[in-house]
Amino acid sequence: MVAPLAGRKVALFVEQDFEDVELAGPRDALVEAGAEVVIVGPTAGVRYRGKKGLVVAADVAASATKADDFDALVIPGGHAPDRMRTRRPMVDLARDMMQAGRIVAAICHGPQVLITADALDGRTLTCWPSIAIDVRNAGGLHVDRPVAVDGNLITSRKPDDVPKFNRALIDALAALP
Amino acid sequence: MVAPLAGRKVALFVEQDFEDVELAGPRDALVEAGAEVVIVGPTAGVRYRGKKGLVVAADVAASATKADDFDALVIPGGHAPDRMRTRRPMVDLARDMMQAGRIVAAICHGPQVLITADALDGRTLTCWPSIAIDVRNAGGLHVDRPVAVDGNLITSRKPDDVPKFNRALIDALAALP
Repeated sequence: MVAPLAGRKVALFVEQDFEDVELAGPRDALVEAGAEVVIVGPTAGVRYRGKKGLVVAADVAASATKADDFDALVIPGGHAPDRMRTRRPMVDLARDMMQAGRIVAAICHGPQVLITADALDGRTLTCWPSIAIDVRNAGGLHVDRPVAVDGNLITSRKPDDVPKFNRALIDALAALP
Repeated sequence: MVAPLAGRKVALFVEQDFEDVELAGPRDALVEAGAEVVIVGPTAGVRYRGKKGLVVAADVAASATKADDFDALVIPGGHAPDRMRTRRPMVDLARDMMQAGRIVAAICHGPQVLITADALDGRTLTCWPSIAIDVRNAGGLHVDRPVAVDGNLITSRKPDDVPKFNRALIDALAALP
């Protein structure tokens, strides 16, 4: 049996203080399904630590990537998105992938990066409750669901939602032409 | 010599993972100047830990306070404001103090609480760079300065700004009729 996501390439954002299971969960599920996962951070080779201690090294700097390199982008939560949104190359990649209609999946505080990328106007999404007002102020329609799928945009609220987040992400990648 | 802030009462917000110096700095400067500082948190008696390890107990629950109890409110930064903004009594107190024109001083991520309180429309303020876009989307005019004073609203960007933040706060309290 061929792995359903063979040949698919996914960028997974990393920064300090990510929510461990929101990075490791999608990463492991994507690899299991046959996708290639590239860890994209501010600086290639630097190791970033999750809130609970998981250490993950960036494979590549965001500044060395472009939207055409990937079929999808995954943005985990925790305190990391507050840092990611101050990194222009990470924000630029997120904006470019949204504009190109590529799959973008963000969980918990991950949508903060999409606010900074000015990519949420008119879009329907969910997120960690504290930033719901920021999402609405950015023009997004906030919903409170385990997973929200609006075209290319897949979002979830929190660590407990990771299985449903992974499922929606894998289904979207498998449905690509 | 009479302490310049004798008789003044200031609420200081606390939640988990506050930026230590942004809580301890204003607290100590206010006490030194003769003000009474009341630590206001989600639950009275609970001890909250700063990012660098400082432990501070809440004197009173926000739900047991009202705007008339205080001459000023101080909101420190760190990861704490992301939690404070999910605590309705803390948001309500911040909103009521803004509406009453009482002094409100917020530093770093502190203005996130004021976004949730819908209290920034048309106001000029500064903050930690990552949330500048959230401030603008909430109707605020963002400026990049060590301290911004707009009527009753005093804001600063980061730990390095604490001395100027304290000075502006103490000056505002000393100027009250």
